[in-house]
Amino acid sequence: MISPEQHNRMANAIRFLSMDAVEKANSGHPGMPMGMADVATVLFTRFLKFDPKAPKWANRDRFVLSAGHGSMLLYSLLYLTGYEDITIDDIKNFRQIGAKTAGHPEYGHIEGIETTTGPLGQGIANAVGMAIAEKKLAADFGATLMNHHTYVIAGDGCLMEGISQEAISLAGHLKLNKLIVLWDDNGISIDGAISLADSTDQHARFRASGWETMAVDGHDQEAVAAAIAAAHTSEKPTMIACKTVIGFGSPNKAGTHKVHGSPLGADEIAATRKALGWAEEAFVVPSDVLDAWREAGSRGASAHAEWTQLLDASPKKGEFLRRFEGKLPEGFDAAIDAYKKKLADTKPVLATRKSSEDALEVINGVVLETLGGSADLTGSNNTKTSQTASITPHDFTGRYVHWGIREHGMAAAMNGIALHGGLIPYSGGFLIFSDYCRPSIRLASLMGIRVIHVLTHDSIGLGEDGPTHQPVEQMAALRAIPNLMMFRPADATEVAECWQIALTHQDRPSGLALTRQNLIAARTEYSAENLSAKGAYELLGADDAKVSIFATGSEVELAIKAREVLTSKGIATRVVSVPCFELFFEQPEEYRAAVIGNAPVKIGVEAAIRQGWDEIIGSDGTFIGMSSFGASGPYKELYKHFGITVEAVVEAAEAKLA
Amino acid sequence: MISPEQHNRMANAIRFLSMDAVEKANSGHPGMPMGMADVATVLFTRFLKFDPKAPKWANRDRFVLSAGHGSMLLYSLLYLTGYEDITIDDIKNFRQIGAKTAGHPEYGHIEGIETTTGPLGQGIANAVGMAIAEKKLAADFGATLMNHHTYVIAGDGCLMEGISQEAISLAGHLKLNKLIVLWDDNGISIDGAISLADSTDQHARFRASGWETMAVDGHDQEAVAAAIAAAHTSEKPTMIACKTVIGFGSPNKAGTHKVHGSPLGADEIAATRKALGWAEEAFVVPSDVLDAWREAGSRGASAHAEWTQLLDASPKKGEFLRRFEGKLPEGFDAAIDAYKKKLADTKPVLATRKSSEDALEVINGVVLETLGGSADLTGSNNTKTSQTASITPHDFTGRYVHWGIREHGMAAAMNGIALHGGLIPYSGGFLIFSDYCRPSIRLASLMGIRVIHVLTHDSIGLGEDGPTHQPVEQMAALRAIPNLMMFRPADATEVAECWQIALTHQDRPSGLALTRQNLIAARTEYSAENLSAKGAYELLGADDAKVSIFATGSEVELAIKAREVLTSKGIATRVVSVPCFELFFEQPEEYRAAVIGNAPVKIGVEAAIRQGWDEIIGSDGTFIGMSSFGASGPYKELYKHFGITVEAVVEAAEAKLA
Repeated sequence: MISPEQHNRMANAIRFLSMDAVEKANSGHPGMPMGMADVATVLFTRFLKFDPKAPKWANRDRFVLSAGHGSMLLYSLLYLTGYEDITIDDIKNFRQIGAKTAGHPEYGHIEGIETTTGPLGQGIANAVGMAIAEKKLAADFGATLMNHHTYVIAGDGCLMEGISQEAISLAGHLKLNKLIVLWDDNGISIDGAISLADSTDQHARFRASGWETMAVDGHDQEAVAAAIAAAHTSEKPTMIACKTVIGFGSPNKAGTHKVHGSPLGADEIAATRKALGWAEEAFVVPSDVLDAWREAGSRGASAHAEWTQLLDASPKKGEFLRRFEGKLPEGFDAAIDAYKKKLADTKPVLATRKSSEDALEVINGVVLETLGGSADLTGSNNTKTSQTASITPHDFTGRYVHWGIREHGMAAAMNGIALHGGLIPYSGGFLIFSDYCRPSIRLASLMGIRVIHVLTHDSIGLGEDGPTHQPVEQMAALRAIPNLMMFRPADATEVAECWQIALTHQDRPSGLALTRQNLIAARTEYSAENLSAKGAYELLGADDAKVSIFATGSEVELAIKAREVLTSKGIATRVVSVPCFELFFEQPEEYRAAVIGNAPVKIGVEAAIRQGWDEIIGSDGTFIGMSSFGASGPYKELYKHFGITVEAVVEAAEAKLA
Repeated sequence: MISPEQHNRMANAIRFLSMDAVEKANSGHPGMPMGMADVATVLFTRFLKFDPKAPKWANRDRFVLSAGHGSMLLYSLLYLTGYEDITIDDIKNFRQIGAKTAGHPEYGHIEGIETTTGPLGQGIANAVGMAIAEKKLAADFGATLMNHHTYVIAGDGCLMEGISQEAISLAGHLKLNKLIVLWDDNGISIDGAISLADSTDQHARFRASGWETMAVDGHDQEAVAAAIAAAHTSEKPTMIACKTVIGFGSPNKAGTHKVHGSPLGADEIAATRKALGWAEEAFVVPSDVLDAWREAGSRGASAHAEWTQLLDASPKKGEFLRRFEGKLPEGFDAAIDAYKKKLADTKPVLATRKSSEDALEVINGVVLETLGGSADLTGSNNTKTSQTASITPHDFTGRYVHWGIREHGMAAAMNGIALHGGLIPYSGGFLIFSDYCRPSIRLASLMGIRVIHVLTHDSIGLGEDGPTHQPVEQMAALRAIPNLMMFRPADATEVAECWQIALTHQDRPSGLALTRQNLIAARTEYSAENLSAKGAYELLGADDAKVSIFATGSEVELAIKAREVLTSKGIATRVVSVPCFELFFEQPEEYRAAVIGNAPVKIGVEAAIRQGWDEIIGSDGTFIGMSSFGASGPYKELYKHFGITVEAVVEAAEAKLA
């Protein structure tokens, strides 16, 4: 049992580490760690189930610092509780190049950082995904192996961001009762008092979406503890409003926005030391305090050991470990291969959204850890297969989430599912609405996690819905995100290959841009090799080619037809399919040069803007595509209207050769 | 007074026009117009203040169809009430290329379409902006000239999107009591029943943010009318939940998701004709019904005439009309010019976010219709000047909105303010968080409206906050949006010029990417011409140049220094500043060729990714910039770490020339 005095000293250790690190870096956010130190101390010393010696223990509680600017709170906690991955020198190195202790917590820098946060509202939505994963895995493996809480510390900013509403309403709907949000209710944001911009009754708001809520003095340790204990018994997710003073302890700055995002300054830190009775030098944690923290950090070791025994005794051990290692099941590649053989025989004429469904039917039969879904476009995204019953609030045995019209919350929750481990989330939306979830896709790319976005209706080919729904710049904008693999497969075989690539890359997110309209089979012969894996390949060759046509997705069909016309006119023409720019650009120079080839005329074709294409066709190449927003009309007419036609390609080639 | 029978026939006219148009187009969404026909009929015949003969009447009520897929509801209403801009042939031409009646309502296609909708949740946030504009202009010009309501029809999708929470919470906070949301509470979305994905108590949710709410049977005309009348007396914004049957009237499909987004089919339309007692052929509106609708449409003429008299009598008439014409005040260009002269003298070393504040200090003194703001980053974005007191719930005489941590809602509301007319909205955020508001920026670009986004902290130059906050792909991603002008000015003079360009373009949105770190004055001499207006210009020339360095923003300083080094080594080097790609690409070929020049070595420098740069430097050009996410650290060290240095430019030039 930790005495009140001991608690205060433990919490003050967080405060001074945070103040000192920000001061030394001359940059950072001391106010939040100082304000939430008491709440975090209660959580980490009395409730959080974790083992710093085994940070990846699958059944640990998950802790998400949604208010990521308060990173020193997390770094302090990880150091104090004994994560071996972080030392006092790392804390002294706060916010320096190469430091594990970056300005905002970065997944992968220190074991114990469960997710990268900073962009507000993302963490709370990540946590919803983690809590979904926990319930789903508990349904798959039983509560003996999977039974943990997910805790979030969120600030006012997190709750004002719209994504939080998507997360909250979904969590309430799904009755994620092991999700507990600790709201840092300090009434302060950067511009000043929250009342400058908001007067929402957060309790009423959360309750409206099916949450339990409570309010406590965030500096009253017993009140905080009682609230968390009560939350454990709730059948709903719980939000605990922790009334705190930002910058607690600072005599002259506490409770104001001045302490949010700037160093306190040497004088004020000295004054705070005096006020809180902290005699230590900067970065020094007294041994009694460090010992108490390390003891708190060792609380989970026995639970971890017991759990390991249960896992060892479980017939599902092998499957459980495989899933958490992120490895695909044996038989996966063979299943894809058999399916590709079938496609080579049947040569189906299909929309790629439909061939994606067919591929998923194969995948979901073998890879039981996929968790599908759609943002209320199930019938349009074709993401539901015979194996994926819907998850409901009372039954998580299904494998499909109806995310609702919540693209952003969905994408962030998918990140949380992937981060949790044990599941591979894929989900559906329209390509145009990747704009709605771009911040989460970016974070998936930054973290390097396996989430797969099915993005249908991928061009003017969607037709009548018009320019608000027609992506023209989204492919370019997504290709701009480092580390993301954006696929635009040309037919059923490429779709299968792109799914295979997406699933086999554990450390990268993917997007699959798929058509609404039917496409011919561009690939007519079986290939054991995954030709899409190098990003681009010669689909149809020609000796001494005068023209190379490079195309993606639906425009590969057009390229094939243009080649026929040009060939009939005696103009040797080859066609290169480019299902993935990123993978192509990562190939050795030799491969790239061979695929790009030496034909004097290079033509790129994509029903989208040119940006990014010069890296393939050169700045003197010809591009057939879009240079404006789209329009509403039947899709075949739109292609003519915007000049993306076989004739246009042929004419461009002839003009260049003339 | 419209009898119940007459009301039914008038509402049925909407239903059959919608059914018939969708059937003929073989594409579209009949369910919502059929379900909301009664509510819309009550609104348009009894409440909405408008004059179809003068669609741009400044004091009209604004009507926003946030659920834009129900576009046939709006087209039907505009046709029936007598907007001259739309005929029955336009309705027959629904969803065809070139038709005014696009799949989703498009601003500019028909007068009477107040905003482009379709991407869900945008309309309700646009409407919040319109309601803000109304209150602000009432404060400026008095209630005799500005006193109208803003009505929204929103669906479940609008309310599930996170942006709606940002809009709702802001509207409640600001007590926008003339904002009335009619929620089409039909319980159905594309995947099926709303209960599949949501169980939010919307009444409690709205009330938590300070709204009045009511619930009515959406097919009970008197109940709807009573609720709207009651809303008019509220001191809060009002949400009226209208319980409706989607596809009302269809005997076999009403109340199901089957009627949401597909034609009913000839048989079902025939059955619906029978069920609703509608004997007319397709697209035929009986004359008694059309007459009744046209009479409803003429209701507003007298109010309009009275208002015109009040305007004529007002001493503020000239200013009012100027503002609504969107023309800048006389003296604007002269003020910018005088400021530029001062800058040429003082040559300030400043962060461009700070020089933007200085420019705004000049602008806001002359252009009284600017309405500033920030998404809780006022002190970081430098968007508040001496003239812009804060707007509060009870005082709209100010000129500054504390938008809160609501980037998306802010951007969409800014669109609404611009669409309303009479004001020029500008606001602030971090460039990285343009990702959060991208859907709204895209719609501003599609609509062609004047909104100005101040986007600070525009590169790794922000330093320690790290990769979650450092834009590397945002410039490329924003440049990809057609019609948007993205500026990245290099110093205080270019900042002033870019502001001048942004303000003088009535028909385009702008973004200004600005630094956190100080920059030298790149422009040292006064130029009467706005050199930034052509997008790029030669900043420093050289006879027989061997090297051309093209740079934007903070990297222009680096280019200037690299030129000094190269020149000292006898390598003739010129520097081209490129504050705006889009404007440069729109210049005549001759100008572009002259600016790009003939130097054998072309180097682009921007602390961001290369994508898009090949159009300037060619695919064989050298690019010095980013190819990955950033990192946390002091900014000068980051520049070195990522190799964006004077030395790197010099070395690259020498290597190419060797």
